[in-house]
Amino acid sequence: MNPLTATNPFFAGLFADDDIAALFSGTATARAFLAYEIALTQAASQVGLIDRELGQRTVAAMADFKPEMEGLRSNLPTDGLAVPGYVRQLKAHVGHMGADLAGAVHPGATSQDLIDTSMSLAIRAANDIYQTRLTTLITALEALAEAQADHRMMARTRMQAALPIDACHRIATWVAPCRRQLDRLRRLRPEVELLQFGGPVGDRQRSQPQGDALAAALAQQLGLQNPAQSWHTERDGPALYAGWLSAVTGTLGKIGQDICLMVQQGIDALEQTGGGGSSAMAHKQNPVTAELLVTLARYNAGQLPLMHQALVHEQERSGAMWTLEWMVLPAMMTCTGAALALATTQIEAITRIGSPGDAA
Amino acid sequence: MNPLTATNPFFAGLFADDDIAALFSGTATARAFLAYEIALTQAASQVGLIDRELGQRTVAAMADFKPEMEGLRSNLPTDGLAVPGYVRQLKAHVGHMGADLAGAVHPGATSQDLIDTSMSLAIRAANDIYQTRLTTLITALEALAEAQADHRMMARTRMQAALPIDACHRIATWVAPCRRQLDRLRRLRPEVELLQFGGPVGDRQRSQPQGDALAAALAQQLGLQNPAQSWHTERDGPALYAGWLSAVTGTLGKIGQDICLMVQQGIDALEQTGGGGSSAMAHKQNPVTAELLVTLARYNAGQLPLMHQALVHEQERSGAMWTLEWMVLPAMMTCTGAALALATTQIEAITRIGSPGDAA
Amino acid sequence: MNPLTATNPFFAGLFADDDIAALFSGTATARAFLAYEIALTQAASQVGLIDRELGQRTVAAMADFKPEMEGLRSNLPTDGLAVPGYVRQLKAHVGHMGADLAGAVHPGATSQDLIDTSMSLAIRAANDIYQTRLTTLITALEALAEAQADHRMMARTRMQAALPIDACHRIATWVAPCRRQLDRLRRLRPEVELLQFGGPVGDRQRSQPQGDALAAALAQQLGLQNPAQSWHTERDGPALYAGWLSAVTGTLGKIGQDICLMVQQGIDALEQTGGGGSSAMAHKQNPVTAELLVTLARYNAGQLPLMHQALVHEQERSGAMWTLEWMVLPAMMTCTGAALALATTQIEAITRIGSPGDAA
Amino acid sequence: MNPLTATNPFFAGLFADDDIAALFSGTATARAFLAYEIALTQAASQVGLIDRELGQRTVAAMADFKPEMEGLRSNLPTDGLAVPGYVRQLKAHVGHMGADLAGAVHPGATSQDLIDTSMSLAIRAANDIYQTRLTTLITALEALAEAQADHRMMARTRMQAALPIDACHRIATWVAPCRRQLDRLRRLRPEVELLQFGGPVGDRQRSQPQGDALAAALAQQLGLQNPAQSWHTERDGPALYAGWLSAVTGTLGKIGQDICLMVQQGIDALEQTGGGGSSAMAHKQNPVTAELLVTLARYNAGQLPLMHQALVHEQERSGAMWTLEWMVLPAMMTCTGAALALATTQIEAITRIGSPGDAA
Repeated sequence: MNPLTATNPFFAGLFADDDIAALFSGTATARAFLAYEIALTQAASQVGLIDRELGQRTVAAMADFKPEMEGLRSNLPTDGLAVPGYVRQLKAHVGHMGADLAGAVHPGATSQDLIDTSMSLAIRAANDIYQTRLTTLITALEALAEAQADHRMMARTRMQAALPIDACHRIATWVAPCRRQLDRLRRLRPEVELLQFGGPVGDRQRSQPQGDALAAALAQQLGLQNPAQSWHTERDGPALYAGWLSAVTGTLGKIGQDICLMVQQGIDALEQTGGGGSSAMAHKQNPVTAELLVTLARYNAGQLPLMHQALVHEQERSGAMWTLEWMVLPAMMTCTGAALALATTQIEAITRIGSPGDAA
Repeated sequence: MNPLTATNPFFAGLFADDDIAALFSGTATARAFLAYEIALTQAASQVGLIDRELGQRTVAAMADFKPEMEGLRSNLPTDGLAVPGYVRQLKAHVGHMGADLAGAVHPGATSQDLIDTSMSLAIRAANDIYQTRLTTLITALEALAEAQADHRMMARTRMQAALPIDACHRIATWVAPCRRQLDRLRRLRPEVELLQFGGPVGDRQRSQPQGDALAAALAQQLGLQNPAQSWHTERDGPALYAGWLSAVTGTLGKIGQDICLMVQQGIDALEQTGGGGSSAMAHKQNPVTAELLVTLARYNAGQLPLMHQALVHEQERSGAMWTLEWMVLPAMMTCTGAALALATTQIEAITRIGSPGDAA
Repeated sequence: MNPLTATNPFFAGLFADDDIAALFSGTATARAFLAYEIALTQAASQVGLIDRELGQRTVAAMADFKPEMEGLRSNLPTDGLAVPGYVRQLKAHVGHMGADLAGAVHPGATSQDLIDTSMSLAIRAANDIYQTRLTTLITALEALAEAQADHRMMARTRMQAALPIDACHRIATWVAPCRRQLDRLRRLRPEVELLQFGGPVGDRQRSQPQGDALAAALAQQLGLQNPAQSWHTERDGPALYAGWLSAVTGTLGKIGQDICLMVQQGIDALEQTGGGGSSAMAHKQNPVTAELLVTLARYNAGQLPLMHQALVHEQERSGAMWTLEWMVLPAMMTCTGAALALATTQIEAITRIGSPGDAA
Repeated sequence: MNPLTATNPFFAGLFADDDIAALFSGTATARAFLAYEIALTQAASQVGLIDRELGQRTVAAMADFKPEMEGLRSNLPTDGLAVPGYVRQLKAHVGHMGADLAGAVHPGATSQDLIDTSMSLAIRAANDIYQTRLTTLITALEALAEAQADHRMMARTRMQAALPIDACHRIATWVAPCRRQLDRLRRLRPEVELLQFGGPVGDRQRSQPQGDALAAALAQQLGLQNPAQSWHTERDGPALYAGWLSAVTGTLGKIGQDICLMVQQGIDALEQTGGGGSSAMAHKQNPVTAELLVTLARYNAGQLPLMHQALVHEQERSGAMWTLEWMVLPAMMTCTGAALALATTQIEAITRIGSPGDAA
């Protein structure tokens, strides 16, 4: 959708986060869809929605399924999503092992169950990454504070010199929100790492009375939370998650903006290693990483309202608003991952803040 | 700033919430500022930053202070905020009771301490209102579910007829996120009902070593949380609060949009009392309240990114980003209050959802 | 809706623009509505939709009409807009002069015709103001360039010192977009200063075959453009206008941000008179006006997408999306007016940019 | 950055526009950079900034240059952009043909000159596509109006049945803004298809006094407009262009939303061929294309403010704000291309609007 930042080698590297990107690859989706379908048939046979032996044979037959991608692509514009074509392929695949197996595929489920759950699995994996990176960043900030412990600098309010402060005071205002974001992530995870299972209209009518037990078994197999009911149309979880992502990049953007201001010649409140070159001015040391933190902060802030516009999700399913989430959330998640990695690089590059003794 | 929605009698009533608006009036600000200054001088004398007897006399002298508004207004464009003028007036006022009293006013504090704390007090009062209104709304939704218990309706996915469902299923998807928002509010309150006390550059240097004790005493007197350090430049609390506000109105916007769709002639899935007239078509019954819930949802979603852009708050104080919060947060809070009140009105106006027995 | 910025004397003055605000007052709306209704009845009698003599008597009877505001307010939440109540009052008013007059009021029109046309009249008046202020600002920038003609300063790219430039180069990058915005405004005016006249469903069915002639006469009387058809649901004009407003404040925000950076101690690339005080640090000279230009730029940018979300305007009238415009456009217009006035104040306050001879 | 929509075969096809995407590929960038460097050296020798014969030899030596991509990628995070590395490679390449040639590469230019001009070239090519697609869409809408000429339908205001109208009235409100967008594009093109040439700090100091003549020659060779001065920091062109893009998708989103509402069972105001399937409900005909038009409208509206936030572009170059444009504008351009193609598909799929004779 944005080839410049996605694949153009002149630009894409700036915004890349291979670890997060991998969670949204076709490979990841294929793995997640199959994991869902296998776990679903298992759970359905476990709770008695389908025959146990039929379930076992179907699960076995699904194990080596690989979707034919060109076929998926060709149905996509008509169906608006890849799942109908995927399920047709999967049923045909197991059908080769027995005519009755197709009936044990996708029992009681709908497209949204697969796609939302795939997203939950990606979110869960991303959250592990974010948690690690936030912890690393906090450690780097703490090390920086220790290294600059006796330094003083001029505080700036409204960009004007105000009063001298400890360099550590500035660093303390950087690290405190990082710690809060880490705490918030821990509390947020159970609200967003959710199984989706509702069936065509969200009420599990095609799997009841075993539907609720099925959902519990399915959630357990997939390692996800089991919400009290499906959340096809209740998008407050994704919206709040997007808010967390944007708050993280915003927190890092503040650090980036401060550093850009500190390394100005004439201010000279910070020294760092590295720094970018110019095609025209060899003497320059550009604070490229710090600037990028600002860019990513502003970008994510700009995406956030779309996840909230998507809360106005009509009736039992809004194709328009659900599709909007696909355009927005993975981009925000990638930017957050990139920003966290960049922030640690940035902090570790700092060799001096302020100066020993009193600030000028 | 928007006279049409603020004071124009042809329009303003649509968006009004007198209870929330009162929290942002000049009267409320005057009350909050004086409460802060009195509590500050008390706390300062309590922890020994200023002489106890001087503190008592100063507190007594402040009690009847009323700012001269014209003076405040005239300094506003130059100073960028009203506090410097306010403090000058307050010092002059107490100065009439003794030349030494002015020195005991505003000890160790800065403009941002007063303004942010005033905002926290408004947020605390608003949260009480939101909590009550959310509870009322949930009760109304539960009553509606009970009243429509045996009704069936056609589920709609992608706006197309899908399968019949219980009317209660639709209602269940409305009420569940309301309950979560109420839970989230309870957990969020300690993160946003915060004392601000940092002094000119946020490190309490003018009140240390008593500054931390002073903050604790001040927080207690004002009934606010006492954060570990000032949060002049750490705006993640306001940003996350804005996210909650927008998630609430988004949740209500989904209900509104559903109702707009349900009352279409030809769909007829919902009947209600009331409904707006037309200047040209006497026969019409417009779902005005439901539409307004959509409007308020989209509006708040649109404001949210500005609170996240404001996270990029430079150095020890960004006049630009802090001022931006004043333009955005009170508007979001008023809209959230209005939407919660309207939502209950809307739900209570519903007389039928779907129909007894099976859906067509 | 935001009492803090609208009426609270501790804050509102920062964001005020009395000239623009007056265009959105209740008085302005009352004047515009009556002008519309009088011109409509006149035009209707002129083109033969209603009897000429009846039209004259009705126009005469309308002349002294003043709406009873409390009545308007009470119908507002039910009807979603004030026009139905207003028209009822107006018909009752003229009814006192003859039972047949009510029938000659509001012929072929609908609420949206009045409200959109009132907005067009406010836009026309605001555009006069913007044109004058932009011209004044450009003159101030030209005078500044002349005054600093022999000065040099250090260019900054990525906030880093790059190469010395003429101070006038920086000023040239400030003034060029202002000139373009002025040109664009001139070209844009005919696209947004539009009569609205479509009747209940936008096709003028209640006034045809005289409807098109009526519209032409009406537009002429009101001094507005006469579009080929009504634009009830075609909101590209307002959306593009909002884009112009935001581009103006963005252009001024760039100037503001530059000035904030230039007045930093250590950079010292700009000196100015005035500057704001601090409640805690008497020595400070805060670039309050420059910061406010940044705030207004970010605010307007943030409002803009809502005017574009409102393009998704359902069928023959979307109450939800139309109402959203009322929340957004007047706020953007007021901020643009305020920013233009502030920008000239800011530019005129500058006493020095860079320094004579070569930059350090 | 968003692998899901960029490359994941389960999703990407929905949002794809191969024609627009090609304009932002690495191949396109490589072609644009080389075209710029060749034209620059030619123009520089033409105006006497460099020796004519040296220029000719250098141009000849550049002709077969192909950048080594891995090298570009490795410098990207440090430099913040690929141009410094690219120019180093290009100089090394021509250096093989003569030690003096490197000095004739990139004369008087800077990274931003190349990148902004590449963007202008992509915009120019995209505008050709948009112009064609808008014309095609308008033709399809006109054909639809002719085909439904005698049909009537129920107008809907606030989603409620209002009065019968001609089907053609609804179509007329769809086509009119498309025609205006086409007109606006024609007027906008000279404002955005601009050469960028300013040198390191935008004032052409390294190419003056021949710089202005050089720019004129360069613009002519590249087929771009030659602005009066460089626009490194004057981003009103890109911002207004983004506004046009979003207004186009918004206009199409209104059509999409109308169609979603019209095909509801019970409303049945529109019939079409095609329509998407469901993984769970074989009977459904989902209005997938119409929904996607809504999605793309809301997405583009959401991106727009970032192009306006980027107007606050500090001093002679803001790395942060310029980079932000790269994240936003190509995505908006691709979505606009996709929406225009989808809209024609959608309109051509319509077989009936309303019904012959009077609406029910």
